[in-house]
Formats: sequence, C-alpha cells, structure tokens
Amino acid sequence: MNLKPLQDRILVQRVEEETKTKGGIIIPDTAKEKPAEGKIVAVGIGKLDKDGNRIALEVKVGDRVLFGKYSGTEVKIEGEEYLIMREDDVLGIIE
Amino acid sequence: MNLKPLQDRILVQRVEEETKTKGGIIIPDTAKEKPAEGKIVAVGIGKLDKDGNRIALEVKVGDRVLFGKYSGTEVKIEGEEYLIMREDDVLGIIE
Amino acid sequence: MNLKPLQDRILVQRVEEETKTKGGIIIPDTAKEKPAEGKIVAVGIGKLDKDGNRIALEVKVGDRVLFGKYSGTEVKIEGEEYLIMREDDVLGIIE
Amino acid sequence: MNLKPLQDRILVQRVEEETKTKGGIIIPDTAKEKPAEGKIVAVGIGKLDKDGNRIALEVKVGDRVLFGKYSGTEVKIEGEEYLIMREDDVLGIIE
Amino acid sequence: MNLKPLQDRILVQRVEEETKTKGGIIIPDTAKEKPAEGKIVAVGIGKLDKDGNRIALEVKVGDRVLFGKYSGTEVKIEGEEYLIMREDDVLGIIE
Amino acid sequence: MNLKPLQDRILVQRVEEETKTKGGIIIPDTAKEKPAEGKIVAVGIGKLDKDGNRIALEVKVGDRVLFGKYSGTEVKIEGEEYLIMREDDVLGIIE
Amino acid sequence: MNLKPLQDRILVQRVEEETKTKGGIIIPDTAKEKPAEGKIVAVGIGKLDKDGNRIALEVKVGDRVLFGKYSGTEVKIEGEEYLIMREDDVLGIIE
Repeated sequence: MNLKPLQDRILVQRVEEETKTKGGIIIPDTAKEKPAEGKIVAVGIGKLDKDGNRIALEVKVGDRVLFGKYSGTEVKIEGEEYLIMREDDVLGIIE
Repeated sequence: MNLKPLQDRILVQRVEEETKTKGGIIIPDTAKEKPAEGKIVAVGIGKLDKDGNRIALEVKVGDRVLFGKYSGTEVKIEGEEYLIMREDDVLGIIE
Repeated sequence: MNLKPLQDRILVQRVEEETKTKGGIIIPDTAKEKPAEGKIVAVGIGKLDKDGNRIALEVKVGDRVLFGKYSGTEVKIEGEEYLIMREDDVLGIIE
Repeated sequence: MNLKPLQDRILVQRVEEETKTKGGIIIPDTAKEKPAEGKIVAVGIGKLDKDGNRIALEVKVGDRVLFGKYSGTEVKIEGEEYLIMREDDVLGIIE
Repeated sequence: MNLKPLQDRILVQRVEEETKTKGGIIIPDTAKEKPAEGKIVAVGIGKLDKDGNRIALEVKVGDRVLFGKYSGTEVKIEGEEYLIMREDDVLGIIE
Repeated sequence: MNLKPLQDRILVQRVEEETKTKGGIIIPDTAKEKPAEGKIVAVGIGKLDKDGNRIALEVKVGDRVLFGKYSGTEVKIEGEEYLIMREDDVLGIIE
Repeated sequence: MNLKPLQDRILVQRVEEETKTKGGIIIPDTAKEKPAEGKIVAVGIGKLDKDGNRIALEVKVGDRVLFGKYSGTEVKIEGEEYLIMREDDVLGIIE
C-alpha cells in the first residue's frame, strides 16, 4: 500500500535523533532539540498558481529534511508511522 | 437520492478502520490512530480560478483517501452516513 | 412581497426534516442530524470577479440543498420563515 | 444638509417594523425578528477594482433593503436617525 | 509647522458637535451621538495599486466628514489637536 | 557601524518631545501626547510589487516623522538608541 | 553536514552580544537589549512570485544581521546552534 500526498503535501518518515550528545552521554527524551529530522518518501504534484500551472516542489523523494517537532499529521501505513505535512513545514534540506 | 457536492467539496463514505493491531490484538476505540480513511462517492465541479476557469479536482470518485478524523460535516442520506468535506481536507490518496 | 438576495446570496426555505428514523420510530428534536435541508426560492446575480464579470451561481431556484444547521440569517417574509445565506454555505444539491 | 457616503457605503433610513403579528397581536420589542428593514437614501460611488475602475453598487437610492439588526453605524442628521453601512451588509432588496 | 500624511491617510480637525438638541436643551457629554464630525486639513498622496499607480483619494482638503468617534490617532501640532486617520475610516462627506 | 534596514523598513532616531506645554508649564512624563516624533537616519530599498519592481519609499533620510508611540523595535547602535519600523508605521512627515 | 534552507529561509549563527555597557560595566543577562545579532551561514533560493519567478533574497551568506530575539527556530548541527528564520524576520544588515 502506498500513499500519494495531495497538492504540496509530502510524506515523511521520521529519523530517530540520536540521543547521545557530542561527548557520548545519553540524554533523556525531553532534553532533545526541538526540530525533528526525516526522510521524504512521497511528494505531491504541487499547488496550482494563479494561471493554473503546478508549482514544482523544492524537495524530492529521498531528501533528508528538518521540520518543526509538531508539524504534520501522523499516519500509520502497514504498521509504519509517517507524517504528512506541507512542503512549507520543511525548514531545510540536510546535505 | 443523490447528493452533488458544490465547488471543491467531495462526498466521502468512511471506511471503518480495522481495530486490530498488526499482531492481531483488538484495540479499543480510543487507541486508534488519528487520520481516518474513506472512499469518495461524489465530487464537485471544482472552484473557479481568477480567470473564471474551473480548477479540476485532484481526486475522483472511487479514490480511497486519508483525511483528518474531525474533517468535514456528517450527513445522512437514506440512512447511510457520509462526510462532506473540501478537497483540501484530504491528506493523500491510498494506492 | 419578494426578496432579491444580493451578490452570491440565496434565499432558502427550510424543509422540515422527518423526525422518523428509517424504522419509523419518532426521534426527539435533539437527536436529529446536523445539516439542514432546504429549497432555494431566490438567488442573487453573483459576485464580481477581478475583471468585473459576474460569477454565475452553481445553484438555482428550485434546487433542494443541504447546509449547516446554523448557516444563514433568518428572515420572515409575510409570516413565512426563510434563511438568507451565501452560496458557499451550501454543502451540496440533493438530486 | 446631506451626507455623501464614501466608496461602497450606503445611507439607510430604518423602517420601523410593524410590531403586530399576522393575527394582529402586538408583540413586545424583544420578540421582533432579527434582520431590520430600511430605505436607501444615499449611495457611494463604489469601490475601485484592481484595474482602477469603480465597481457600481447593486443597490440604488430608494431601494427597500433587509440588513442585519446590528449592521452599520448610527448617524443623526438634522435630528433624523440614519445608518451608514457597506453594501455588503445588505442581505437583499425587497421588491 | 505642517504635517503631511502618508499614503491614504488624512489629517482631520475635529468639529465640536453642538451639545444642544433640536429643541435647544443642552445635553451632557456622554449623551452625544457616536460618529464625530471633522474638517480635513491635509491629505496623503494615496496608496499604490498593484500596477504602481497612486489611487487618488475620494476626499480633499476642506471636506467636512463624519467618522467613527474612536477612529484615528490624536496628534497635537502647535497646541492644536488633530486626528490622523485612513480615508477608509471616513463614513461620508457632509454637503 | 551602520544599519541598513531591509525592504520597507526605516531606522528612526527618536526626538525627545518637549515636556513643556504651550504656556511653559512642565508636565510629567505620563501626560505627554501619544504619537512620538523622530528623524529618519536610514531607509530600506522598498518592497517588491507583484511584477518584481521595488516600490520606492515615500519617506527619505532626514525626514522628521510622527509615528505611534509603541511602533517599531528598539535597537542600540554604538550606545545610541534607534527604532526600526516599517514605513507604514509612519503617520506623517513634519514639514 | 550542511543545511540548505527552503524558499526565503536563512540559516543564522547567533553572535553573542557583548555583556558590557559602553562604560565597561558587565550587565546581567536579563538587562541586554531586545534584538539579537547574527551571521548568515546559508540562504534559500527565494520564494516564487505570482508569475513563477524566484524572488532573490536581499541578504546573502556572510551578512551580519539584526533580528528579533525570539525570531526563528533553533537547530543544532554537529553540536553547533543555529537559527532558521525567514528573511522577513531580519530587521537590518549591519555594515
């Protein structure tokens, strides 16, 4: 089963942040930084502009992205958890 | 009796989510995931853009879609329950 | 006396929902479903688009429509009760 | 003394609603229906659209109109009470 | 010293409303009607429309205008009190 | 050190209002009139309009302007206090 | 690891404000001025305008900028703290 996001939405699989600090100390869950990291697994075809043309997304499948920890809607597809969010919820692409 | 949704609205029949986890354990209602699943049974003709052209919907009758659990307005047609919502409430199409 | 709604407004006469369930049992008022049903008795000439052209309404006089129970403003014309609402308050046309 | 409303504003003289029901029974003030009735005594020249053209009003001086009871701003001109409101506050024209 | 209002702003000198009723009875301050009256002493050059052209104001210096009692910002220029408001706060021109 | 405001922002140096009334009586701080006066020390290059052209500011460096007392963000540059605000926060130019 | 901000977002590294006053007295943290200072380390490719063209950013990598103390979202990249914000959160460029 696949999920095709509509318009400018993307489907993101959360990447577990490492719970170790630079010095290797494991920190409890509540101390982790705010933005979350994920991998894009599906993208929509883009929104329409005023002239009826699709606005291509700036992100693509496979991109690793940062996004606000509370962005998107959680969905479960075949037991796996994903997030559906709008491209505008993405803060940046990790290169 | 049929219902023709206006503009960019769609008529959706909720698909009951299976209340079993992957391992086959039945979970109570409150533990189910947030987004709901449904089948589109009717679609509007689309909104007008600034130049007076209809913007075709990205979804069509028969599509299985995910949407926020509290999206749309419940309607009862001949004893059957449906939801009328805007296309923008649809998170994605299940393929 | 008649009332000509302005712009994209419509004049709707509420159709009393049958207070019987499919099985014929009369249900009290508070148990009725949310959206209300009505018949359109007058329509406006439509809003102007950006180029100064009227946007024709998608509904017409005689259409039976569903709308949110709390949509519109109640008016009394010659002792009869009507609702004035915007076309956008109409959820769908019953066919 | 006259008042020329600006843009899409209109000057309305409230018409006292008859406080008798169809059957001739006088009802107290608080039981009257919500929308109010009035006669248009002056209209503005219309708003400008995006291309700098005036958008003609749909209502004209002399029209009897229905409007929300709390629409507009009360003004007193030579001892007479009027309401200044935007055309969009008018629900419909009584014909 | 003069003040040149920016864009679609106007400089208005409040005209004291006569505190006598038609019959000549002096009424206390709190009983005065809501909108205030003033004389325009300076106008801005107008806002820019989407094509970069100035939108001429509908009011001009010398116009007597009605405006909401709480519209605008009070300024004191050489001991005199004025109000700076947007043209849109003007309800109508007194002729 | 200089600060170049972005877009339609301006850098303003507050001019202390004289705390004497016309008659020469010194009034305490809380009794001063609302809008504040300042001198523009830097201006941005203007916002872009829909066609990608810069909209020139109506104010320029050296203008003495009135603005709402709580407009803008305070910044300290080399020990001096300034305000960064948008041109739209300026009520008028003192000539 | 690098982070490429999307659209009109920028990646900023905060510059610690000197906690000494002009006279050399160290002031506690809560007494520091409101806007914060930072250096831009990455910029997005700009938003699309209505015609589908990218709007170039007014800031560039290396610029020292002022921004509101609570602007942006904190991110940690390889142990270093940064802020992702929109260009519009930048108050001005320090020259």
